[in-house]
Amino acid sequence: MPKALPMLDTTAALCCSPMAAAPLDEADALGIALRLKALADPVRVRLMSLIYARAQDGICTCDLAPAVGVSEATVSHHLKQLREAGLIEGTRKGTNNYYRPRPESLAALCQILNPRCSC
Amino acid sequence: MPKALPMLDTTAALCCSPMAAAPLDEADALGIALRLKALADPVRVRLMSLIYARAQDGICTCDLAPAVGVSEATVSHHLKQLREAGLIEGTRKGTNNYYRPRPESLAALCQILNPRCSC
Repeated sequence: MPKALPMLDTTAALCCSPMAAAPLDEADALGIALRLKALADPVRVRLMSLIYARAQDGICTCDLAPAVGVSEATVSHHLKQLREAGLIEGTRKGTNNYYRPRPESLAALCQILNPRCSC
Repeated sequence: MPKALPMLDTTAALCCSPMAAAPLDEADALGIALRLKALADPVRVRLMSLIYARAQDGICTCDLAPAVGVSEATVSHHLKQLREAGLIEGTRKGTNNYYRPRPESLAALCQILNPRCSC
């Protein structure tokens, strides 16, 4: 079971940037920083992009590894961090793990940060 | 002079998530990861929030340090990383440095990542 991160209030996050509206408290800042840290790696950014671009079908570790040019073991390590941060989800099919986006989680993070939210 | 990061195409970023539209290439992924890394720390997230919440007036290191409970030297170290990532800008007034948001840069980053861009 992936380690849970502190919850983000996705309801509050659905409209204009809480970050710019008032200073964030320590707990919220920690939750945001942990998610950003999970994303803040060039291989993980590419993995996110591959997974989000193949949202409907899911994509297996066996396809992700050659696409980013690292071993399946390294890809699995990166995917674990993205999964623990709630940014993707994984399901096992036969001998393969397939990954899908969790767009509501990534959108909430972006909307907390985005100072130009258009709503 | 802060070290320049690879440029983000903010024009392309102004509409629906390039990250989810097609897999990002290595250079774009690196540019995004470097900006995320600059943000991915609880103290830096709180500093960003304080700076973005005081957008019009700017805020000095002398006010930021007590607000986040660390020394001015530590705050300066964190601010340097945010400045180098293009997420804030600093100007000197007398003996103090004042910091202001660079919302176009943060908005571009969010819009590249956000899978729920409403445009």
